[in-house]
Amino acid sequence: MKYVFAFLLSGFVMGLFAQDEDAFFIKSIYDQALEEQFGYQWLGTMTSEVGHRFSGSSNADSAVFFVAKHCRAEGFDSVWTQEVEVPRWIRGEKETVRIEGSNAMDLSAASLGNSIGTPEGGIRARVVEVKRLEEVDSLGRSGVEGKIIFYNRPFDNKQLRTFNAYGGAVDQRVYGPEKAAEYGALAAVVRSMTGRLDDHPHTGVTRYRNDAKAPGIAISTLDAELLSNQLKENPELELFIEMDCRNEDPVISHNVIADWHGSDPNAPIILLGAHLDSWDMGTGAHDDGAGCAHIMDALHILRSLGYQPKHHLRLVFFMNEENGLKGGLAYAEYAEKYAVDHLAAIESDAGGFVPRGFSCDGDETILTKGYKQLNAWADLMSPYGIQFSYGGSGADISPLKPQGPFLIGLRPDSQRYFDYHHTDQDVFEAVHPRELQLGSAAMAALTYLLDQYGIADE
Amino acid sequence: MKYVFAFLLSGFVMGLFAQDEDAFFIKSIYDQALEEQFGYQWLGTMTSEVGHRFSGSSNADSAVFFVAKHCRAEGFDSVWTQEVEVPRWIRGEKETVRIEGSNAMDLSAASLGNSIGTPEGGIRARVVEVKRLEEVDSLGRSGVEGKIIFYNRPFDNKQLRTFNAYGGAVDQRVYGPEKAAEYGALAAVVRSMTGRLDDHPHTGVTRYRNDAKAPGIAISTLDAELLSNQLKENPELELFIEMDCRNEDPVISHNVIADWHGSDPNAPIILLGAHLDSWDMGTGAHDDGAGCAHIMDALHILRSLGYQPKHHLRLVFFMNEENGLKGGLAYAEYAEKYAVDHLAAIESDAGGFVPRGFSCDGDETILTKGYKQLNAWADLMSPYGIQFSYGGSGADISPLKPQGPFLIGLRPDSQRYFDYHHTDQDVFEAVHPRELQLGSAAMAALTYLLDQYGIADE
Repeated sequence: MKYVFAFLLSGFVMGLFAQDEDAFFIKSIYDQALEEQFGYQWLGTMTSEVGHRFSGSSNADSAVFFVAKHCRAEGFDSVWTQEVEVPRWIRGEKETVRIEGSNAMDLSAASLGNSIGTPEGGIRARVVEVKRLEEVDSLGRSGVEGKIIFYNRPFDNKQLRTFNAYGGAVDQRVYGPEKAAEYGALAAVVRSMTGRLDDHPHTGVTRYRNDAKAPGIAISTLDAELLSNQLKENPELELFIEMDCRNEDPVISHNVIADWHGSDPNAPIILLGAHLDSWDMGTGAHDDGAGCAHIMDALHILRSLGYQPKHHLRLVFFMNEENGLKGGLAYAEYAEKYAVDHLAAIESDAGGFVPRGFSCDGDETILTKGYKQLNAWADLMSPYGIQFSYGGSGADISPLKPQGPFLIGLRPDSQRYFDYHHTDQDVFEAVHPRELQLGSAAMAALTYLLDQYGIADE
Repeated sequence: MKYVFAFLLSGFVMGLFAQDEDAFFIKSIYDQALEEQFGYQWLGTMTSEVGHRFSGSSNADSAVFFVAKHCRAEGFDSVWTQEVEVPRWIRGEKETVRIEGSNAMDLSAASLGNSIGTPEGGIRARVVEVKRLEEVDSLGRSGVEGKIIFYNRPFDNKQLRTFNAYGGAVDQRVYGPEKAAEYGALAAVVRSMTGRLDDHPHTGVTRYRNDAKAPGIAISTLDAELLSNQLKENPELELFIEMDCRNEDPVISHNVIADWHGSDPNAPIILLGAHLDSWDMGTGAHDDGAGCAHIMDALHILRSLGYQPKHHLRLVFFMNEENGLKGGLAYAEYAEKYAVDHLAAIESDAGGFVPRGFSCDGDETILTKGYKQLNAWADLMSPYGIQFSYGGSGADISPLKPQGPFLIGLRPDSQRYFDYHHTDQDVFEAVHPRELQLGSAAMAALTYLLDQYGIADE
């Protein structure tokens, strides 16, 4: 009995010891992240040297070169690019929404990605304000034809997590223009996707799933309020809209992939992902420059600390998350074709704010095991404000789900995200060095734990 | 046995039911806070109508009138002011720190509160850079006399909570000038109290505990780096410093107190506090305008929801936290003299950022009971990211500690606080509406729970 006890005790002490070592190493990760601020500096360089990274643009090509060059300089075992065919949408020069009449006034507007343009010379028509897509169905062709539909349902600011408010409003942008077109509307104007009242229009993708197409354009939330008020005073009010955006033939772009080989050649891959592309407004500093900086920095930190991974650690900078997800789809296709074995994939695509935790996803088997494994590390990560939850990972890695890896998404504080999202305000100055670096550290720490312990079978 | 079980079960169900009701009410508090944004609007009005609220200034008088007026408009049962004698320090017009020589250069500088000025015409002297106060002791009179001491120990950015980095550096500002004076230095220049490298000097208090006084002035962190580099190249470098700040006779100012009577006339007071005064740079929007908005809004929210408290709820807007704590001391003196019975006091004085929790303090008896009570509410507050910890409350309420109340401090995320603290950058635009409102909601929710349940005896 005494021996059993001693044995148990030694196991217990060894467990404690490992926990202490892990805690110590994680502390050194955070120290390194907060002192060196490598990710923050790297993001500053990328946003100033490359600028935006819109799919199919020459800037996106520059971004591919920039990232590949920096990964090579970091000394990864291999750095390669994967061809991806991406759509080529061009915003053009004209994105005008004007209230016509004696007090004509231009509104702050941004064409929606993938939108068709207006006929040359623009359109002028009366406006029907709605809050929901179903109202357009109810209005029917007689109420909609020849008019402009104005989608004006605001964010539900009661949502604690702003992504939930976004999720509750974004159907207006994604499906509003095609819904308007179904009933013969000339165009759709959409209230910007933010809970703030300000003057910045938010772009973002709209979709046409059939032949009915109408141009779609966002106006700032303040101008949405103004337009709504003016419509109350004058229901006959007319808008002039002119847009020369257009879709051209798809072009070839690339995912950038950097590999760091682990000591165990048979161990599966732990993938860290973010999307390299951005919208063409601002410089995509939060969306998703921050994610690119996080994954670059996470492995930089581990390398700086002299860490030798067991698993194959892989960075993937995905192209075209914003308007097609072609990079994520192409990577999943490649992985399936070559039976690439991923233990886990972690994406950062929710901004460079203070991390509050990770959420996870995956097929049923891995999700149960993975979530349990994450929570075994709760005591190691809670001192850093990191908690684990269910609830999705990231758009680019989600196509891997049928292949069985554990999918994880970084969850930063969301309060300020939609101040910047898809606007000209999403610039480096909107990123806080310490907030960003805490994200790098959280990504590095979780990568370390996954590499050390894998995901236990039960 | 069956009856006992049924009884236990009904108690359990009733407990669940109360928990559900509490969860429901707390949700309505957060809904109200995030939708109405009363505190944010109120803070915008106060900072624009009053501006800074530096103790002894006419602005501080305006702030007293402003807050009293708004509390009356809110309909509290009584609104009164408590006289407080406060120091009257005047920054003056001159706060110059110049590197002399062929490439003369003015540095971004701000005189330290309570500092004496330089002799008229300023001083010019060589500079001794140190990292710690003890180095001045080591240098002794021969190394210091007739020179300018330059305190240049940076924030330890490895600290997760920036207040810990502040705590580890601020002795340079508080005690540096008097230490320099002890050995005959002509002045002390202090690196600003922030972990960021920028151009904004941070003021803040310095103290003289004896007759040895030397002027103290802060320079921005970027200029501290620049000065340090130039000193390496040229140890003979001289600084010119001119300051005409001065202390005048103390003046009478006020705490503002608003009372909301509870249904139980014998129940003790639950106090919500913040400090009304600020420094004279910026408009003290985070420090501590945010706290004033939090406490004003917390009770506004409860009133808007038709809540009827059991306890006497009291707001105290303390004067002179920044350079004397005279308001907090005067209130504690009054409370002791009249045996005012406080169950708890909650202060918000750490900025208007996303709240991460509350920390608590108090004499040993109440602290144990109070901390246990807080944690009984953990399940109700954790959905809002609120956690409870030991570790201090607030400067203004801490003089109440010997009288036995439970002391609590709101703990917002600290990452950005020292970007603004005591600078001209601490303005309304630096406050985020949702981040501020989450603080109001957290304060209101905790007030509600304390009012409903008090602090259990074991």
